[in-house]
Amino acid sequence: MSTVNRQILLNAHPVGDLKHSDFKLVEAPMPTPGEGEVLLQTMYLALEPAMKGWMENRADYVAPLAIGDVMRGYGTARVTESNNDRFPVGSVVSGGLGWQEYLVTDGKSVPIQVLPEGVDIPASMGVLGVTGLTAYFGLMEIGKPIEGDTVLISGAAGATGSIAAQLAKIAGCRVIGMAGSAEKCDWLTGELGLDAAINYKIEDVAARVRETCKGGINIYYDNVGGEILDIALNNLADYARVVICGGISRYNLTGEIPGPKNYFNLVFRRSRMEGFIVTDFASRFGEASAILLEHLREGRLCHRETITDGFENMPNALMSLFTGDNIGKQLVRVSE
Amino acid sequence: MSTVNRQILLNAHPVGDLKHSDFKLVEAPMPTPGEGEVLLQTMYLALEPAMKGWMENRADYVAPLAIGDVMRGYGTARVTESNNDRFPVGSVVSGGLGWQEYLVTDGKSVPIQVLPEGVDIPASMGVLGVTGLTAYFGLMEIGKPIEGDTVLISGAAGATGSIAAQLAKIAGCRVIGMAGSAEKCDWLTGELGLDAAINYKIEDVAARVRETCKGGINIYYDNVGGEILDIALNNLADYARVVICGGISRYNLTGEIPGPKNYFNLVFRRSRMEGFIVTDFASRFGEASAILLEHLREGRLCHRETITDGFENMPNALMSLFTGDNIGKQLVRVSE
Repeated sequence: MSTVNRQILLNAHPVGDLKHSDFKLVEAPMPTPGEGEVLLQTMYLALEPAMKGWMENRADYVAPLAIGDVMRGYGTARVTESNNDRFPVGSVVSGGLGWQEYLVTDGKSVPIQVLPEGVDIPASMGVLGVTGLTAYFGLMEIGKPIEGDTVLISGAAGATGSIAAQLAKIAGCRVIGMAGSAEKCDWLTGELGLDAAINYKIEDVAARVRETCKGGINIYYDNVGGEILDIALNNLADYARVVICGGISRYNLTGEIPGPKNYFNLVFRRSRMEGFIVTDFASRFGEASAILLEHLREGRLCHRETITDGFENMPNALMSLFTGDNIGKQLVRVSE
Repeated sequence: MSTVNRQILLNAHPVGDLKHSDFKLVEAPMPTPGEGEVLLQTMYLALEPAMKGWMENRADYVAPLAIGDVMRGYGTARVTESNNDRFPVGSVVSGGLGWQEYLVTDGKSVPIQVLPEGVDIPASMGVLGVTGLTAYFGLMEIGKPIEGDTVLISGAAGATGSIAAQLAKIAGCRVIGMAGSAEKCDWLTGELGLDAAINYKIEDVAARVRETCKGGINIYYDNVGGEILDIALNNLADYARVVICGGISRYNLTGEIPGPKNYFNLVFRRSRMEGFIVTDFASRFGEASAILLEHLREGRLCHRETITDGFENMPNALMSLFTGDNIGKQLVRVSE
C-alpha cells in the first residue's frame, strides 16, 4: 500500500484558458484515521465546468479557494480502514472528497454517504448524482415543460444537457440539441431520440435554429451562453423560459465578457430568463432521485460517461470539458 | 371649425436619435362621419418611449408602421359629431387615435371607450391608463413584492416608474428610485416618500446602489437597461426578480447594443429576469384599475403629468422622453 497521498492543489487563480501551471501535484503523507474516523481511497472523481469558476473565485455561491488549497471536487471512494461502524471497510461512499487519492474523515468533517450495494458507480456520479439532479430541477422547475413544447438545449451531449434533453422528451416535448461534433449529434438523434441536432461548430446555428424551432422556442436550456444564447433569445416563442444552467463559452474569457445583446426580446416575447443552484432543491433530492432511477430502470434514460484513467490526469480531464472532448459525464478513475 | 385635419406621419424609420425629419406634418381633408360613425376631435395625446421602437419596427409585438402611416398613439377625444347613440356629442372617449387632430370611427374600426363623467382626463392617460396598469402588473405580477423587500427602480420619476415605486411602498417595501435630476430626486424622496433616490447623472451609481441596497436588491424594476441594469444585476439578493419594463438607454443606440454582461449573476443569485407586455393582462384591467383608483382616492398615490401644448409639438414631446425632460406622464394637449 502507498505511503504517500497524492493531491492536486490550486497553484494559481486561472486567467483565461486553464493551464497546467494553475495546478500543482504534491505528495502529502498518508493520513491516519483516528477515533471514529475512516480512511478513504478515492475511486472516481467527477469534473464539472463550474470548477473553473471556483478556481477563479468568480462563483460566489461557494467558499473561496485559496492558493495551496486542495482542489474542490466530488467523488466516490472505498473505505480501506475504519474506526466507525457506520462506514465498514469495503463500503463505497461519495462526497466532496477533493482532488486527492486518500482522505480521512469522521463522516462529518467531510460529509459522506454510503452508496447502495451494487450501484453503478459511474452512473451514480452522473445521471444519478448532482448532474442528474441539476438537469431535473433546471428543466422541470425552472423550465416547466408542457407537452408539445419546443425545447432547445445547448451542450446537449454534455453531462447535464444530455439528461435534460431526455427528460424533455419524456415530458412530451420536441427537443433539439446542440453539440460540437458529428459523433455527438448522431448520439443525440440516435440513442437519445432527439428530434434534431445542430452541430454548432460547422452549421449556421441561427439558420438551423430558425428552421428546427419554427413556432419558436418554448424552453431554452442553456449550458453555454455567448452567441448561442443570443440566437436562442432571438427565436423565443411567447412566454418562453430560458434556463441558465451554465455558460461554458464564457468561462475561458477574460476582461469584459459581452452579455446577451438580445435580452430585450424577453419583453417582446414576454419571457423569463432564470438561473438556479441545484443545492437549493436539496430537500427534494430524494423525490427527484427516485424519478431518475425509475426512468433509468425503465430504459427511458440513457447515460454515458467519459472515463480518463490516472489521478495525474485530473487537470487534462477538466480542460477537456472546455474543448468539448467529452460525451456525457467526464470522470477520472483514480483507483479500481 | 377647422376644415383640415392635421396629421403627423412616419416619414422615416429612425436611425439613432429621433430627428424632426423622421416625422411629417400634413394637412388632410377633414373626415366626415358616415352612418353609425362619429367625428372625434383629439384633446390629449400620450407619449411613450416604446413609440420609437414602433417607428423603427424593432418592436415586433405590434403591427409594423410603414412610411406615410399616421403615427400610432393613444389619446382622448371629444365627440363633435355623432351618428351613433353609444357616443353622444360632447362625450369624451379614449383609444388608439393616432397622431391627428380629427378621426372618424364607428367605435370598432378604431376601438374607443367612453370615459366616465368628471374623470381627470390627464390622470386617465397616466396613472389610471395603460401607464398605471403597466406599473401595476409589472410590479405585482412579475416583481411579486414581499413586505420588507428592497426594490430598486430606474426611471423612477417617469410615468411608469413613479407609479411602480409608490405601489412598492404601498406593498411595504424599501424603495430606492433612480432619476436624472435633483428636482426629480427631491420629488421621489419628498412627495412620493421613497426611502432614497440616486441621481444617476452626477452620482457614482454603483457605489450608491451598494450603499442603499445593502442586503441586496429583491426586485429591480428596469426602465432603462444599459449600464444601470448591469449594476443592478451585480447587486441582487438571492431569488431576486428583475422586471424588464423598458430599456430607454438602448432606444437611441444603433448597431450592436451591448447586453447585460452580468446576466450570469442570475445563476449565482438564483434569480429571474422577465419581460412582459401589459395587454396580456387585459382580462384583469378592471380589477387593477379599481385598485389604482382606490389608492388615488385615499391619497396613497401621487401622479404628475408634463403637458405640452400644441399638436405640432408632438415630435418634440416624444424626443423629450429621451433627454429626460419630463416628470411623470408626458402628454400633448391638442385641443381644450
